Amino acid sequence: MTKRIAVIGGDGIGPEVTKQGVKVLEKLSQITDLDFEFEEFSIGADHYLATGELVTDEVKADLLNFDAIYLGAVGDPRVKPGVLEHGILLDLRFSLDQYINLRPIKLLDSKFTPLKGKGPKDIDMMIVRENTEGLYAGVGGFFKKGTKDEVATQEMINTYKGVERVIRYAYEYAQKRNKNNKLTLCDKSNVLTYSHDLWQRVFKEVGEKYPDVTQHHMLVDAMTMKMVRNPEIFDVVVTCNMFGDIITDLGAEIQGGMGMAVSGNINPEGVSMFEPVHGSAPDIAGQNKANPLAALLAAAMMVEVLGNPKEAQMIQKAIDLSLAENQTTIDMGGKLTTDGVGDYICSVLG
Amino acid sequence: MTKRIAVIGGDGIGPEVTKQGVKVLEKLSQITDLDFEFEEFSIGADHYLATGELVTDEVKADLLNFDAIYLGAVGDPRVKPGVLEHGILLDLRFSLDQYINLRPIKLLDSKFTPLKGKGPKDIDMMIVRENTEGLYAGVGGFFKKGTKDEVATQEMINTYKGVERVIRYAYEYAQKRNKNNKLTLCDKSNVLTYSHDLWQRVFKEVGEKYPDVTQHHMLVDAMTMKMVRNPEIFDVVVTCNMFGDIITDLGAEIQGGMGMAVSGNINPEGVSMFEPVHGSAPDIAGQNKANPLAALLAAAMMVEVLGNPKEAQMIQKAIDLSLAENQTTIDMGGKLTTDGVGDYICSVLG
Ligand SMILES: CC(C)[C@H](C(=O)O)[C@@H](O)C(=O)O
Ligand SMILES: CC(C)[C@H](C(=O)O)[C@@H](O)C(=O)O
Repeated sequence: MTKRIAVIGGDGIGPEVTKQGVKVLEKLSQITDLDFEFEEFSIGADHYLATGELVTDEVKADLLNFDAIYLGAVGDPRVKPGVLEHGILLDLRFSLDQYINLRPIKLLDSKFTPLKGKGPKDIDMMIVRENTEGLYAGVGGFFKKGTKDEVATQEMINTYKGVERVIRYAYEYAQKRNKNNKLTLCDKSNVLTYSHDLWQRVFKEVGEKYPDVTQHHMLVDAMTMKMVRNPEIFDVVVTCNMFGDIITDLGAEIQGGMGMAVSGNINPEGVSMFEPVHGSAPDIAGQNKANPLAALLAAAMMVEVLGNPKEAQMIQKAIDLSLAENQTTIDMGGKLTTDGVGDYICSVLG
Repeated sequence: MTKRIAVIGGDGIGPEVTKQGVKVLEKLSQITDLDFEFEEFSIGADHYLATGELVTDEVKADLLNFDAIYLGAVGDPRVKPGVLEHGILLDLRFSLDQYINLRPIKLLDSKFTPLKGKGPKDIDMMIVRENTEGLYAGVGGFFKKGTKDEVATQEMINTYKGVERVIRYAYEYAQKRNKNNKLTLCDKSNVLTYSHDLWQRVFKEVGEKYPDVTQHHMLVDAMTMKMVRNPEIFDVVVTCNMFGDIITDLGAEIQGGMGMAVSGNINPEGVSMFEPVHGSAPDIAGQNKANPLAALLAAAMMVEVLGNPKEAQMIQKAIDLSLAENQTTIDMGGKLTTDGVGDYICSVLG
């Protein structure tokens, strides 16, 4: 029954917010049957600058012994942009084959959205992003680099295996989500006539096994328009890695911004990783100011994916209450510290 | 002094809206020194279904004799999606080497934006999209197509030549635009380490010649967030073909939707093409209901790019008035027909 959680606080405010998550999960274990064991990993900018190491093969092998990974944030002004993102975030996603990126877009209170006249009922969708291939394959090259004749290529690579498994996951999600059993495929099949032709074919093929799920198609350009004009038309959305990166961030913004955006990097047959979407915010690190709600939502998602939806709901409800009662950090309109929000959530839990 | 304009009305409401544009330009020629000569081309679904032809080499050669192309819309439910887009829109952009896609994002009245608390001063940017390469190159393929081992690839190809010319155009635009001389490069250079590394290098290199333009960088995911939360931070934005497709549509929506979105496909040394962004809307075709404002804005942009900014302003001002006075079609809150709006604009002109 004990769930082993690898905690990677990471950089900047990362460790401060995961600390709240650990506190809340410990509280949860006191009042429910759940039991957690935490182990901290020092992965991030400090470790990299001291040792030159990002995530070693040894650490990767060790992570396989955990039930889940709980990540704070990576990113540090002392390190060249891209190094930590590639060497930690993308490397973990790829090497642990976390082929699903689950990004709930859920507005908790109308006051948080930049959109006119939209409330919690209108902004409530789940984006299922492919997380291991596409333009993220890292394949490409330069020809005549640095000359006036330079050609640079970047390959969008998709495999049947990669597309089928994420689409299947999305259909299953749409089936059990209790909204309107609708799955939207977001692509650019009218232009990407190779890679997104594969997505189109697999979407239809897999869909035959889910006759109760309504199939819906939307081009990515139209998708961004609809997300700001009529977000209520979406239930579950499945999309490729690159477009997923874009529309999940747009989604995060319409549901209130990074303060409440959460991301699950999921390998349904392996070890998954849960993180708040926000960055390491080095400017406010160490000041007990960071908003921990996204990290707490990530903890709730972790609990849910580990098979405990009821307990996840308990955290979610406590967060709803903190928002309703303004028991939040300054950026959310409240007056609490990072620790203060964590303590409040624990006190609500019981 | 006479400008020769090739008119491609196209499908659905296309011919109805370009008719208004032609009417307004004829009016303009009566009251200014400008002079236009129009020639209609029957390109579109009807022609394709009757003859199997899209745009022939002969037509392409003929188009080179014009000063500009004025396009309505293409798209017809009787034709497989993609055929007309590729065979007309993309083919014209590519074969006439219209390497700039100019997409103004300009809110005319607060009531049109779905964003809270944003007015015309906040939403006013110009997006300069690369229009001839990147993921639109059409290069890619299938391996083991139709099997469980299928691999599909789609190549994002950029050349120094292609990137340099659009970035240079954007710097020049930023310099003369009279906002705050700021140019934002929107890319995903932290992941697309080949193709967008080229963009990064060229952006800095070309920027050296424009020391009075402030350089700004934004990742495409963050870009979509900022566009809905803080659109006021943007002046001119330059981006690749695929991301440009996405963010220009998002931009169209925040400035009021397709009813007022316009697109210039520009070859600064050749023949450019101007179009409303909206589709052919077959459901309302032939009913004198279509909103012609985007087509009129496209006509204004054509006049401007042909070297007559003062006359373009006259059309723009008449459109501003039609909005202020509710002299618009039903979708915009008015009561006029398509013809009625065109007539109104002409009457305002003098
Ligand atoms: C940091 C970056 C590499 C990453 C991505 O592009 O996937 C981030 O934007 C995300 O969405 O998790
Ligand atoms: C119709 C389609 C091929 C086109 C594109 O993707 O460029 C359109 O979306 C546009 O932006 O003009």
